[in-house]
Amino acid sequence: MRQTFDETTDPSFGPAHLPLIRRAMAEQGLDALLVPHEDEHQNEYLPAANDRLGWATGFTGSAGAAVIFQDKAAVFVDGRYTLQVRDQVDLATFEVRDLMDGGVSAYLESAAKPGQAIGYDPRLHSPDALARLKTAAAKAGAELKPVPLNPLDAAWGEARPAQPAAPVVPHPLAYAGEDSAAKRKRVGQSLAAQGAQAAVLTAPATLAWLFNIRGGDVIRSPLPLGQAVLSADGTAQLFLDPRKVTPDLPAWLGNDVMLAPPEDLPQALADLKGQTVLVDPAQSSAWYFDALGAAGAAVLRGEDPCALPRACKNKVEIEGTRAAHVRDGAALTRFLHWLATDGQITPPDEITAVRKLEAFREATGALKDLSFDTIAGAGGNGAIVHYRPTERLNKTAETGSLMLIDSGAQYLDGTTDVTRTVAIGEPSREMQERFTLVLKGHLALGRVRFPAGTTGSALDVLARQALWAHGLDFDHGTGHGVGSYLGVHEGPQRISKAPNSVALQPGMILSNEPGYYKEGAYGIRIENLQVVTEADPIPGGERPMHGFETLTLAPIDRRCIARDLLSEEDRRQLDAYHARVRDVLGPTLEPQVRAWLEVATAPI
Amino acid sequence: MRQTFDETTDPSFGPAHLPLIRRAMAEQGLDALLVPHEDEHQNEYLPAANDRLGWATGFTGSAGAAVIFQDKAAVFVDGRYTLQVRDQVDLATFEVRDLMDGGVSAYLESAAKPGQAIGYDPRLHSPDALARLKTAAAKAGAELKPVPLNPLDAAWGEARPAQPAAPVVPHPLAYAGEDSAAKRKRVGQSLAAQGAQAAVLTAPATLAWLFNIRGGDVIRSPLPLGQAVLSADGTAQLFLDPRKVTPDLPAWLGNDVMLAPPEDLPQALADLKGQTVLVDPAQSSAWYFDALGAAGAAVLRGEDPCALPRACKNKVEIEGTRAAHVRDGAALTRFLHWLATDGQITPPDEITAVRKLEAFREATGALKDLSFDTIAGAGGNGAIVHYRPTERLNKTAETGSLMLIDSGAQYLDGTTDVTRTVAIGEPSREMQERFTLVLKGHLALGRVRFPAGTTGSALDVLARQALWAHGLDFDHGTGHGVGSYLGVHEGPQRISKAPNSVALQPGMILSNEPGYYKEGAYGIRIENLQVVTEADPIPGGERPMHGFETLTLAPIDRRCIARDLLSEEDRRQLDAYHARVRDVLGPTLEPQVRAWLEVATAPI
Repeated sequence: MRQTFDETTDPSFGPAHLPLIRRAMAEQGLDALLVPHEDEHQNEYLPAANDRLGWATGFTGSAGAAVIFQDKAAVFVDGRYTLQVRDQVDLATFEVRDLMDGGVSAYLESAAKPGQAIGYDPRLHSPDALARLKTAAAKAGAELKPVPLNPLDAAWGEARPAQPAAPVVPHPLAYAGEDSAAKRKRVGQSLAAQGAQAAVLTAPATLAWLFNIRGGDVIRSPLPLGQAVLSADGTAQLFLDPRKVTPDLPAWLGNDVMLAPPEDLPQALADLKGQTVLVDPAQSSAWYFDALGAAGAAVLRGEDPCALPRACKNKVEIEGTRAAHVRDGAALTRFLHWLATDGQITPPDEITAVRKLEAFREATGALKDLSFDTIAGAGGNGAIVHYRPTERLNKTAETGSLMLIDSGAQYLDGTTDVTRTVAIGEPSREMQERFTLVLKGHLALGRVRFPAGTTGSALDVLARQALWAHGLDFDHGTGHGVGSYLGVHEGPQRISKAPNSVALQPGMILSNEPGYYKEGAYGIRIENLQVVTEADPIPGGERPMHGFETLTLAPIDRRCIARDLLSEEDRRQLDAYHARVRDVLGPTLEPQVRAWLEVATAPI
Repeated sequence: MRQTFDETTDPSFGPAHLPLIRRAMAEQGLDALLVPHEDEHQNEYLPAANDRLGWATGFTGSAGAAVIFQDKAAVFVDGRYTLQVRDQVDLATFEVRDLMDGGVSAYLESAAKPGQAIGYDPRLHSPDALARLKTAAAKAGAELKPVPLNPLDAAWGEARPAQPAAPVVPHPLAYAGEDSAAKRKRVGQSLAAQGAQAAVLTAPATLAWLFNIRGGDVIRSPLPLGQAVLSADGTAQLFLDPRKVTPDLPAWLGNDVMLAPPEDLPQALADLKGQTVLVDPAQSSAWYFDALGAAGAAVLRGEDPCALPRACKNKVEIEGTRAAHVRDGAALTRFLHWLATDGQITPPDEITAVRKLEAFREATGALKDLSFDTIAGAGGNGAIVHYRPTERLNKTAETGSLMLIDSGAQYLDGTTDVTRTVAIGEPSREMQERFTLVLKGHLALGRVRFPAGTTGSALDVLARQALWAHGLDFDHGTGHGVGSYLGVHEGPQRISKAPNSVALQPGMILSNEPGYYKEGAYGIRIENLQVVTEADPIPGGERPMHGFETLTLAPIDRRCIARDLLSEEDRRQLDAYHARVRDVLGPTLEPQVRAWLEVATAPI
């Protein structure tokens, strides 16, 4: 089994580790220390060696921070984690505060005392966040001091897990679809167009995409940790831990990419003296800005120049993701069949369901990893958006309940992410009504046609309008970008209430995942991935309109649908989708599963 | 008749007036002069005395600019006016260039020569626009020079119309709903909350709203031109031409508002020395920023502090606009009855239609003014979004065509703006289909419920999705704010593709006006005004949701509807709207018109 169900921290972490950290702070003359969730690579998921916040506090959410004074400490989380933080953190050791609206800055301003020295690790903070923190400390008369060696790392010492050093391997052209030289050339041209001679690239997904390589330093995504300097002429230096360099790699990278160990990075930055160098402040920490500034380079702040090209998948990548979705859909359908048969007789617990689904995916023989830990939420656990089953929280589904299963896989040819909500026994009319409102939003967003230039923010309402009409809503985004055998969350595109200026462009893969959550009772989410398609002519139309092609193939539980709430257009669309699921997956399935799928995908 | 159909300029204006302007430029030692469309008050509609661009070039569009060198000249317009400018401007005198994407700046950069002096009138340019122009001139080695007296005004001389001096009168509490002292107090508090001791207010609509006064300096809107300085304590100085001050005004304004002539304004700004003063760079020209800077005040750039409070109408204003819409709807319905009876036998020309509609509005006895010149577009003229009929362009409707009528009125209790598209004879199936797609968008935007915090940008797609699905779209915003016996276009709210961060709040009035335009053939637009309503509980709902109440009351031409394209929900909504139109207007109409309305509003 890839997924585990233990908890890696507990509330004893704070009381046990804070004295060690404070001693190390004192040795460096620090009155306080900033502990952000972010690591050196601004990853969404952290290698265990870099989960400093978890080790210091016990809190393992995907965003947060702590500030440790010698005589007090605070942990900062956002609204998603207010319950979890109280479960994971010792409240006698840490005050819990709100992360949003400059929570850490406001705390520094009120908690720091004149003359205090507050340490920070410049490799862990974005330059903009750091500037705000410096201003706040200054208001209190305190000073932010960069630390050469993070006192937390010193305190962690021998107990700290090793830095990951997973092998970095070529990602063949049969999956990547465009060779690295061509990518480097066009990204180099975009640098030149912006007046830059080079870019410093630090996002692991960018390294993976640009050089057509994959690694394994970060769980659930094939990312290689490292850095690169790309010149406008398309040549590059790539900094990787030599332990990770596999024998084929140098030849694969070719003559125009110089491989070097991470120790050479500072000199490479120093060599950029006099050049204009693009750096993305959302991806690269203050350390890079400081180093380039000290070297005498002119720093041009701008978006990672690989982000948009990476988001727009080429034909080979789209073909690959289609194949991945057929494979993954068959595995998920086998699981749904099991849940609709055995699972109805003996309702499973969450961990059993997760293991069963993983086994079906493993049996494809192509599974490289899960794309994230499967969320299986039975009953009220389904209403916790960031839920992950553990031995302690594991719950058995009850008859008359809903089970929400959000899962995905990493295959060489594509990354999947899919959510289905399944009735265990008979769902109530309320469950059916709300499931159907979610489904209506999912269908409306799936069928929309839109002109070039339209953003995800402009389409978000389509997924919500049916819920809104009934006084309901959901508190997460509607759609995130998805990589091609890369991160399951990728930018810059996004479908959400929050304004976003990135136009949806052909080849972008996005999730379509409206939901509804009734606290303590049940959660509903329906998620397919869909790819933006080239504008194709509409009969009688005058203007080209983009659209979406649905990639995910798996039945949507018909027992949860209140048919009378669907419009004719909704019904036609759902029936057509189910017919496609049946036609594409059917031939790949065992007779028993296929027979079930026939029924599960019958017209509504 | 209020509306006229003559053209106020012609292409001879440029050749006739440029020599005069150039002579006046030479007298001030200028090599070039900037002529923006904007006047001293950043109005949408200009008093004749301030239409400098029109006098210099002949071009009368609502946005544009000109640059006049001694040996060449260029006029700048946006995409809406590319046809009109060629009709109105002498192309041997003016080069036509694109206004958008820094068109004037780019021109200055390439056309100006080192050492040249380019004059500008600091009262006419926003500080941000001016900064960009200064940079562009500097790149060419030229210099932007403020002119103490605009050479164009000097050249215009005796021929220039007089500055308007319409009487400024109290706007009674029975219409305004909140007295000026209360408004000044709460706006003053918002200034204090932003750390400002005062604000300089220059938007005529802001003066009208804040002091509960109305004027008549600008055609089609009851705006008083002037300026004010509001202190955080709620006291104010109001600068008005003494000729406009009516006898009751000083008492109406009370002791806390000091009336002063415009000549006193510079001293009032000088008196703000040492204070933090809020100024809106989108409303107030560079002149104010320069004057405050010279006075030693700290200028705080921010949105006009009255814009948002003005946009959120109070109960009295909403009651007033409801009454105005009943009155206006009855007048429009009489017109639509005429068009559906006499107009079908002898299809009218556009001017006849405009006059007829104005006569019905005039007959209400309550008409203060039109809220804009009525657009009546027969056949292909309906496809020109900024069309206004003139004697020269006037067209008679043909059988089998559509006529688009966009009109509105100013009443003491409210401002209206409504568009109906009517078939003359039998519409074609294509006309019906496209009319119905527009109607579907109009209905979808009318019925949406949405949570607090939702912006107009987020809702825009609802008005477009049916058109998009058929490869069609329209190239204007979907909805603009509307004042209460004030401007028919008001911010800060807006429903459009362009991102807008202003949440829709209860009391805001917006238009809902999707359209479709087939060049040279016909135009379709369906426009109602609707007011954002307080969130009221939805049975079974969990969260409060705002909604819209439709204000406009007039039948939508059923002969233009392709019934099969409407959903059941669409039909129910249209029938309910028509029933309301019938029930509310019916009792106020003559028997003949009422009988027609019965048929015109029958269930679809």
